[in-house]
Amino acid sequence: MNIGIVGLGLIGGSLGLDILALQQDNYVWGLSRNPATCKQAVKIKAVNIASTDIVEIPDRDRTDIIVICTPIAAILPTIASLAPQLPSNVIFTDVGSVKAAIVEPASKICERFVGSHPMAGTAFQGILAAERNLFKNRPCVITPSTDVEAVEKVRSLWQSVGMNIYECSPEEHDRAVASISHLPVMISASLIDACQQQEDKSVLKLAQNLASSGFRDTSRVGGGNPELGRLMAEYNQSALLRSLYTYQQSLQEVINLIENKQWKELVALFANTQRDRIFYVD
Amino acid sequence: MNIGIVGLGLIGGSLGLDILALQQDNYVWGLSRNPATCKQAVKIKAVNIASTDIVEIPDRDRTDIIVICTPIAAILPTIASLAPQLPSNVIFTDVGSVKAAIVEPASKICERFVGSHPMAGTAFQGILAAERNLFKNRPCVITPSTDVEAVEKVRSLWQSVGMNIYECSPEEHDRAVASISHLPVMISASLIDACQQQEDKSVLKLAQNLASSGFRDTSRVGGGNPELGRLMAEYNQSALLRSLYTYQQSLQEVINLIENKQWKELVALFANTQRDRIFYVD
Repeated sequence: MNIGIVGLGLIGGSLGLDILALQQDNYVWGLSRNPATCKQAVKIKAVNIASTDIVEIPDRDRTDIIVICTPIAAILPTIASLAPQLPSNVIFTDVGSVKAAIVEPASKICERFVGSHPMAGTAFQGILAAERNLFKNRPCVITPSTDVEAVEKVRSLWQSVGMNIYECSPEEHDRAVASISHLPVMISASLIDACQQQEDKSVLKLAQNLASSGFRDTSRVGGGNPELGRLMAEYNQSALLRSLYTYQQSLQEVINLIENKQWKELVALFANTQRDRIFYVD
Repeated sequence: MNIGIVGLGLIGGSLGLDILALQQDNYVWGLSRNPATCKQAVKIKAVNIASTDIVEIPDRDRTDIIVICTPIAAILPTIASLAPQLPSNVIFTDVGSVKAAIVEPASKICERFVGSHPMAGTAFQGILAAERNLFKNRPCVITPSTDVEAVEKVRSLWQSVGMNIYECSPEEHDRAVASISHLPVMISASLIDACQQQEDKSVLKLAQNLASSGFRDTSRVGGGNPELGRLMAEYNQSALLRSLYTYQQSLQEVINLIENKQWKELVALFANTQRDRIFYVD
């Protein structure tokens, strides 16, 4: 297989490392806006060759699959700029964490597009953070297409690096990740914001000193990259708002039980959440 | 020092282990409702002697400090039953995670009471979970008293096992822990509850399969012991409700920004939470 990786960051770099480490006859080329990134990607064997410009990739016309590993906002512009420079039988896929906002327009600007969302990562970014086996045993969503061969090739690609594949519509994907990935960021950030609203400065200082593992874990994703939080909200707005409204109702129910001292009902609710969490967390 | 530990679970057992391991002339006796727990506590050297009945503790009249390590609901009844059987100069302290509901009534039923809240723990309970150095470098709140000697002895006790002491009023303590300890449990449980409200069963199943570290961390304390969640709400009701109302406002602000597509303001909010989290988390 001839595979192009566009965007040589944590995801693109790690994907290249794993593909080239497979005992297969793969050829991987990479594109990055940054020449230093291209050099580093070649050096660590994440790609066979890399450039800032696709015209400098000698075997580009024999490409089977191109994986767009850029930030969300750059996915559609990148496909729009690359597709006219490549044969129409090249399959495009992406790694964006939202799918409805990508899949439909992408399918209009390139003939063979299959949406992907490999759910893997670390706290770090960039080619220097790239690592082997990042994708192993992690879930990957791919979206359906009438182009059965394209879907199978994209499925095989992610399976080859150890991912568990889930095929579903862009809308189903977006609703699922809204609830288990994007909603946690919003409620976690709101926690930090609420704690900071404490007007009594001695209580605020005390809270900061007493905070321990419960606060640390619950606030982790709310203290992450601000730009990532914004992208989730912007590109998955309607599914996220739906999750947030449902969440407001669940929170109100907890508040009502506490206000009304319905301790038996509150214990029952916590017993349910204790039981149900196991379905999400191994 | 002659120290009594009442309730030989994770906290009481770990405290005894550390005190007896100090190169000091300490004598530690224990009380537990369970004879097997008493036996185990002696065996692991968490106490010199233990019984289910205080009349069987030979040196009880020479006790300096009694540490009540029972669950919250048993603290006041335990003090009320023990105080009349001991000299009036014995100092009592507790380890309850709420203070206003304990300190005032406890001070009425025993002459020398100082409230404590050693903030340490693991995911486990009981004497079998007791471990050395559980308290090391962890924060411990103690509440003020006009009995300066009693406060100093309680402070020394917790310092001797490595804790960092914060002295504050019961109300300040309760407001601080409401925000950084009890509120996270409520919002985390609400997250699990909200995700389970998903009516489309294929999306629910997908969400469960895709959930990863973000969901795992944010939902952790909401999937904990239901009875502990209830105790926080019951014994710290007013401070917790105050935190919950503030939280609802913070959440509504996030929702408003997303509804109105105020992305710049949303990034600014996330930048603040990213910066502010550092004050709570080392």
